[in-house]
Amino acid sequence: MPLCQVEMGKKKKNVMLPANQVDLTKVKYDPGEIEAPNLSGLWLRIFVMFIEMPFIGPVIVAYLKKPNKLQEMLRETVIPEPPMFRPEFPPQEQESGVVCLIEDGTSQDRVDSSVRCLPQYDPASASRSSGLTPSFRYWKIRDYAYSYRSRITTPVRVAEYVISAIEEFNNNKKPPTPQLVSFNAEDVRKQAAASTQRFEEGKPLSALDGIFMAIKDDIDCYPHPSKGGTIWFDEVRTVDKDAVCVSRLRSCGVIFVGKANMHEFGQGTTGNNPNNGTTRNPHNAERYTGGSSSGPAAIVASGICSAALGTDGGGSVRIPSSLCGVVGLKTTFGRTDIKGALYDGGTLEIIGPIASSVEDIMLVYAAILGASPADKLSLNPSIPCLPDLSSHHEESSILGSMRLGKYTEWFNDVFSPDISTKCEDILNLLSQTYGCKVVEVTIPELHQTRTSHLVSIGSEALAALTPHCQSGNDKKFTLDTRTNLALFRSFTASDYVAAQRLRRRVMYYHMEIFKTVDVIVTPTTGMTAPLISTRALEMGETNLKVTGSLMRFILAGNLIGLPAISVPVGYDKQGLPIGLQIIGRPWGEATILRLAAACEALRSETKKPASYFDVLKGH
Amino acid sequence: MPLCQVEMGKKKKNVMLPANQVDLTKVKYDPGEIEAPNLSGLWLRIFVMFIEMPFIGPVIVAYLKKPNKLQEMLRETVIPEPPMFRPEFPPQEQESGVVCLIEDGTSQDRVDSSVRCLPQYDPASASRSSGLTPSFRYWKIRDYAYSYRSRITTPVRVAEYVISAIEEFNNNKKPPTPQLVSFNAEDVRKQAAASTQRFEEGKPLSALDGIFMAIKDDIDCYPHPSKGGTIWFDEVRTVDKDAVCVSRLRSCGVIFVGKANMHEFGQGTTGNNPNNGTTRNPHNAERYTGGSSSGPAAIVASGICSAALGTDGGGSVRIPSSLCGVVGLKTTFGRTDIKGALYDGGTLEIIGPIASSVEDIMLVYAAILGASPADKLSLNPSIPCLPDLSSHHEESSILGSMRLGKYTEWFNDVFSPDISTKCEDILNLLSQTYGCKVVEVTIPELHQTRTSHLVSIGSEALAALTPHCQSGNDKKFTLDTRTNLALFRSFTASDYVAAQRLRRRVMYYHMEIFKTVDVIVTPTTGMTAPLISTRALEMGETNLKVTGSLMRFILAGNLIGLPAISVPVGYDKQGLPIGLQIIGRPWGEATILRLAAACEALRSETKKPASYFDVLKGH
Repeated sequence: MPLCQVEMGKKKKNVMLPANQVDLTKVKYDPGEIEAPNLSGLWLRIFVMFIEMPFIGPVIVAYLKKPNKLQEMLRETVIPEPPMFRPEFPPQEQESGVVCLIEDGTSQDRVDSSVRCLPQYDPASASRSSGLTPSFRYWKIRDYAYSYRSRITTPVRVAEYVISAIEEFNNNKKPPTPQLVSFNAEDVRKQAAASTQRFEEGKPLSALDGIFMAIKDDIDCYPHPSKGGTIWFDEVRTVDKDAVCVSRLRSCGVIFVGKANMHEFGQGTTGNNPNNGTTRNPHNAERYTGGSSSGPAAIVASGICSAALGTDGGGSVRIPSSLCGVVGLKTTFGRTDIKGALYDGGTLEIIGPIASSVEDIMLVYAAILGASPADKLSLNPSIPCLPDLSSHHEESSILGSMRLGKYTEWFNDVFSPDISTKCEDILNLLSQTYGCKVVEVTIPELHQTRTSHLVSIGSEALAALTPHCQSGNDKKFTLDTRTNLALFRSFTASDYVAAQRLRRRVMYYHMEIFKTVDVIVTPTTGMTAPLISTRALEMGETNLKVTGSLMRFILAGNLIGLPAISVPVGYDKQGLPIGLQIIGRPWGEATILRLAAACEALRSETKKPASYFDVLKGH
Repeated sequence: MPLCQVEMGKKKKNVMLPANQVDLTKVKYDPGEIEAPNLSGLWLRIFVMFIEMPFIGPVIVAYLKKPNKLQEMLRETVIPEPPMFRPEFPPQEQESGVVCLIEDGTSQDRVDSSVRCLPQYDPASASRSSGLTPSFRYWKIRDYAYSYRSRITTPVRVAEYVISAIEEFNNNKKPPTPQLVSFNAEDVRKQAAASTQRFEEGKPLSALDGIFMAIKDDIDCYPHPSKGGTIWFDEVRTVDKDAVCVSRLRSCGVIFVGKANMHEFGQGTTGNNPNNGTTRNPHNAERYTGGSSSGPAAIVASGICSAALGTDGGGSVRIPSSLCGVVGLKTTFGRTDIKGALYDGGTLEIIGPIASSVEDIMLVYAAILGASPADKLSLNPSIPCLPDLSSHHEESSILGSMRLGKYTEWFNDVFSPDISTKCEDILNLLSQTYGCKVVEVTIPELHQTRTSHLVSIGSEALAALTPHCQSGNDKKFTLDTRTNLALFRSFTASDYVAAQRLRRRVMYYHMEIFKTVDVIVTPTTGMTAPLISTRALEMGETNLKVTGSLMRFILAGNLIGLPAISVPVGYDKQGLPIGLQIIGRPWGEATILRLAAACEALRSETKKPASYFDVLKGH
């Protein structure tokens, strides 16, 4: 921590140097490990009983917070920067080689534009996806679109495969691995019939017509309830219409299969859920999917849905995408309208798509983007763009100019060397193939970044939940969530404001770094999919070491609103997927999508894990 | 409170209606009186001892908060709006009949432009100001400017009068009435000599050259310390340069007489200050000046300084201006750069000028305005303008088009009917003379507005002070401040976020009202200058009823960043000044300045209170 021990009057005080006076070349890597007990089962239950007691609880929480220096950072240090409560983005230059989308136009028009950004479609692709063995390839959205238009199949026929696959996962899998928490086969059949009729009439709504998608349980998708991974939240909050993003997809003809499982209220990153059962990782049923968007990532990774919507306030789209071997996009804060999500008043969370390929991410992203009226006013979003991937030649020259920022000490601070190796390999391939330049960067105050994020997201979640916590409802949360809420209750309003002062510093440092690089690259997570312990299944668990490792590279994206994408780059020795994270400049989705597409094309490993489900072949 | 008792599941819950669904025609006036003990002297000391105790203190604070419904509003009610952490201003139309100033130009150029906005100067004015008896009129800035340029006097000669007047007030007044808390006669003489030399060389810097100003003790003015009304804060925070606003004035040739007294850390609105002694009201030495900018208002009202800078986070410029019979301008949030003030990281506080006339306010305002780089980015300030008052004919027609919003029940909710009467009188004069139209408006959720403001400003003040509260410093605050800090410590981060949700509602309602009116008019305060109790002088006092009455009409200006001005409109039966507050649209300083100038011209009473000090005549 770059403190300056200043002699002021008679006392030495901790006063941070203004961020613009910190010498970045002298910053030492210090991730600041999280210290916290790892509890599950009965011990967790007893622990929660104590921390929820009046008078005693706060003392225990204060004791546990001490080694993590929250008090020192937020209460004993003068932070010279004024608070930044939401990302304040400096104006950005237009990216090159892009196609601009009309934010205020229709979703269908934007999807049409995004199709034109993609390389020429090869009709042989559809049959190849399904047909080739042993290497299963996911059907892409354009494969379905082509098959529907050329009458190879219909949404009604696909729906039956999808329905039986969902029922298989929800009911018959051993161990049980619920991917959806609200599902109605008749509703899916109805949507599929309507879509099929549009094709029969030759009037499909867009390239997304007849495409099957799942929606995370914290985003409204009428007529399903939004329970946020609980089994009771619909009692205090009813759903009477689609969230804005869902409604945009619906206008494009998307078929919604239902609400996908999640870590309760997004309060964790493993995907553990004692309420609904824990969704299993399609690559290994003994492993977590990651979270909190566990169901959305799993149902895409299983090949049942082409895409899903998740929310990402602390990696909740990127982490499960990485652990399940699919692509997850965290959009710039304010790029998508979060109205209709359970936390629609936060300063960190966004709605973003999960899909099996970068091109599918582009199509869904084009459909859902568009800032809320308030954000348009206060955030000045730049015009949304997509990379123009239609000409391979131009693409190479644009990629050749890219400078990839890498903070090597951080990059290598992972549980398994496989992660660094696979991520390093793809960077080398980018350099060799296109001439991308890897530039060493330094990111200071990683510990402060985590503290600022924790206080911000915790306080905002608590503010959203508090009015619903009356009359015993707070005992209906899982023990994991209750542990978090006890921690969040210890944050004072003054802590919150101090955390926002740190946030402005983090923004400053990143904007400095982006003067010399186009993106920052990291592994998405510090570990591959963690093992599920039997004890954790029933009562949950709190394991901040795992959480810390999963969230290690995630936080700046949320805290200062940067776009980031996780793209699969290979597997560790146990066959678990590894993701590379590409973090872009504000509003720089086009650049990270371009690089992610290049990584995808260069990736050599495409082996098929056992639990993939080919909806068209029924296995 | 427009709550909607909704049957949700099995429980009834308090859920606010979305602000845009509230029927404003059905809103009942409900100011929500503040309930709190009125303590001073020994009782206050004992009270503070208890509320600062661990475990017991928080319980007492919670008990005292209960009747004020803070918990009900912030923790038990679902507020559907997302939080608005800082004012988010919708785009505004350009005001008419204005002269635009160049925000990025020099302060001198802006002062030159502002002089051209004023009516033709009459050289007889200078001698009239000083000469006429018995009705003393303040010297205006242009009187000094003319006298210096025509060699009637020099800054050096005026300096001696100013110095002896300050010494008289600081040392010889019975009762003592310290207006300045840092003053160095030699430093003033040096500045005056430099200014005089510029006039001798025929190179004055601007119309403000040689003008004497005081700076509130929470704004940096080198080489004075900034103690914020304490006697120790310079031990933990040193001043090494001028605040941005002060530096802009210095570039115009302003002479700074020193740092003006204030309510400790702005934590009160009476001006009570046991550290430095309490500044007395120039109109009645047994009365408070109001605060927190007590010294700045008093030194201007006494005729010693032409103008002063204050800060206004909860009426601290407007309240003392009203109680001392001078003009005070609260600028739009972000219009002036607050860098170099003690609370430079807040979301409510601004720096604004106090002067004896609207034209002097215009000159000083022109010099200091200019948003900080960060605010320029995030607030999108409109171009700063002044009303063009140079043509009387045009002026009348513009004034004739003005619609003045008045919420009569609120307007009349004051301690003395004199206040309503005098404010009403001036509105009638505006209607009769120019044809201004008074339009009845309704402002809902006044109690929520106060709660949101209290939680916001308290939390931000606490965040600024907390790092300095280590090692016993927190016991150096006055009992009044310590009471406030104990209250502020009870605010959780989740309360802070909930308060910001209320803030967005308040913004919405005001923007709706401003669709039908150009300004909102209220009395500035709910009472005229309150009596000083002897017990309060030594140990301070806490009297939230007085605070509530002084702040009754103030808060929206701060909470949602609107510009507002207090202009004297007469006296109550005890000879105490009454101020009218004019609240404008975002960035609408020109409109409120125009109306304030019209009020000033129409005002009939100009009697001279005994304690005015004519610096040029020495009495």
